[in-house]
Amino acid sequence: MSRTNRAYRLRRRPAGKVTDADLEFVTEPVGELGDGQALVQTLVLSLDPTNRIWMSDHRGYMPPVPLDSVMRGLGVGRVIESRRADLPVGAHVLGWTGWQELTVADDSALISPFTVLPDPLPAPPSAFVGVLGHTGITAWLGLEILALAPGETVVISGAAGAVGSIATQLAKSQQARVVGVAGGPEKCAHVVEDLGADACVDHRAEDWHDQLVAATPNGIDGDFENVGGPLMDAILDRLNIGARVALCGMIADYNQFGDGSEPIGQRAVGQLLMTRSTLQGFLVLDYAERFAEIVEQLAGRWATGKLRAEETVVDGLENAREALDQLFTGGNRGKLVVRVSG
Amino acid sequence: MSRTNRAYRLRRRPAGKVTDADLEFVTEPVGELGDGQALVQTLVLSLDPTNRIWMSDHRGYMPPVPLDSVMRGLGVGRVIESRRADLPVGAHVLGWTGWQELTVADDSALISPFTVLPDPLPAPPSAFVGVLGHTGITAWLGLEILALAPGETVVISGAAGAVGSIATQLAKSQQARVVGVAGGPEKCAHVVEDLGADACVDHRAEDWHDQLVAATPNGIDGDFENVGGPLMDAILDRLNIGARVALCGMIADYNQFGDGSEPIGQRAVGQLLMTRSTLQGFLVLDYAERFAEIVEQLAGRWATGKLRAEETVVDGLENAREALDQLFTGGNRGKLVVRVSG
Repeated sequence: MSRTNRAYRLRRRPAGKVTDADLEFVTEPVGELGDGQALVQTLVLSLDPTNRIWMSDHRGYMPPVPLDSVMRGLGVGRVIESRRADLPVGAHVLGWTGWQELTVADDSALISPFTVLPDPLPAPPSAFVGVLGHTGITAWLGLEILALAPGETVVISGAAGAVGSIATQLAKSQQARVVGVAGGPEKCAHVVEDLGADACVDHRAEDWHDQLVAATPNGIDGDFENVGGPLMDAILDRLNIGARVALCGMIADYNQFGDGSEPIGQRAVGQLLMTRSTLQGFLVLDYAERFAEIVEQLAGRWATGKLRAEETVVDGLENAREALDQLFTGGNRGKLVVRVSG
Repeated sequence: MSRTNRAYRLRRRPAGKVTDADLEFVTEPVGELGDGQALVQTLVLSLDPTNRIWMSDHRGYMPPVPLDSVMRGLGVGRVIESRRADLPVGAHVLGWTGWQELTVADDSALISPFTVLPDPLPAPPSAFVGVLGHTGITAWLGLEILALAPGETVVISGAAGAVGSIATQLAKSQQARVVGVAGGPEKCAHVVEDLGADACVDHRAEDWHDQLVAATPNGIDGDFENVGGPLMDAILDRLNIGARVALCGMIADYNQFGDGSEPIGQRAVGQLLMTRSTLQGFLVLDYAERFAEIVEQLAGRWATGKLRAEETVVDGLENAREALDQLFTGGNRGKLVVRVSG
């Protein structure tokens, strides 16, 4: 049986916004499976800010994607052909599909093998890269680091985004005063009305700094930091003694990687000293042994309607490269995924 | 009995280097003591980078020194007249003497009252603001935060300075690979030969960055950070996964406070994320309940010659303002104190 795969191959490291000369969309034949291999059809591909890091040669938490390789990515797929017992045909799987329609799964997986999902699927495929996947687990872990006491004030940047929208809801359930930060009045209304934040700072408004001050009259005890740059500095300037910063992302920098500009950087690191605060960088992949336990917590809240799973779905793998840019321009709301098939 | 006091009063907030128009050296009468008061003669005054913060209106861990007040400072003194039982004449005391010869001690102390030191003094007065005082305790606490395992690499900036020189020796006693950073070949030789560091990076050399790379072939697990700025960024760029940063000082910024320039800032905070590292700001004053225990540890090492107490002594209170600048130009080695009397 002759099949073709469509895939994105990284041809060069982007300078700023990713172009189709950086990430080429190609059509390629797929060979016959060998023993110990299975063929996974991608259903849903997760788009994440970290994708942009992987395209660069910036020192990240994973090596850069090698040039001419298929772009690295996390997705949910279905096994459509198999010559291995642990990946039976029809099984739904979560794993490193890459930015492509068909993945040959075998024991050579560089990061981790595919995980077989429950049958029948208890939630739509996109949930397993969203609220019940890395995204939701990241939000959960960040809140553990922040260890908010009731009444403490937490600021969550990127509050309308994938991780931020879950973190906002979880923080509110912990009786914290939750201040989201999002881009534009519409997203801010969403953060307050739909996600339950007590206030939202519109970082695109000219008076964003005044808004932050007004929204945090008692200072800031926790910072769920997804953005970095001047916004993070303004948050650091308002930290209370013994505050915690859960450093989850610094998206303000990523889309400039490779364009030769200086990173934006932080002016106010000294405030971590003055307030004797702690900043902890964290990465969901380090906590694999806790995934099941945390997903159970998230699934319970999601299934009973206590946790909304916001998402923006883009149809068609051919639109993935263009869609990625939404993460940097603020086009998406909630988890951004590409529906590849199914 | 009519007495005069000599003191520094803060007349205005410095713009850059402190001038005598900022910090005026005045001679003033001292009145008779009232009930509950004692008169403390300053023997030794501690000069610290933080003094420069207190002169500014920067958001620090203590309020700025009010204009026209006597400059805040820590010192060791002797009670020379007393109308209170807990501060008998002849007692040596440690406390907030301020930058002056005579302090009236009473219950109005804004920060904390004087502590009576053992009689006879088990060490020279300067030791109680140095190796057996806030300086030594700070070094101890920073190393607790770093929690170095044997063989791990720690970088200590300001390694020839007050806190750094103690931290370097303590880290070496923990079987870490200790890399100091200091200004100039002479100080670097001191850091290696006298303080026991495995290597020292001369931050004034043109090839300081190459030196740092060469001295940390296995990356960096701990950063005892006293300086900030580009040096700290270079350290962050070499952190290993799960590294720790004990943020003790950011002296690179302090002497610019008030001069209108932008703070130097940090470019590489994102590396704390990529390496899932933790940065903790800390301040010795938060650990008062542990002072006795830690000083006992330090005193044992000091008394048996295992811990050198380096110091630079400047004679005469009238030279204190000029001497403070040594902290920012690198003039001092070890703890910088002013011998005020005795």
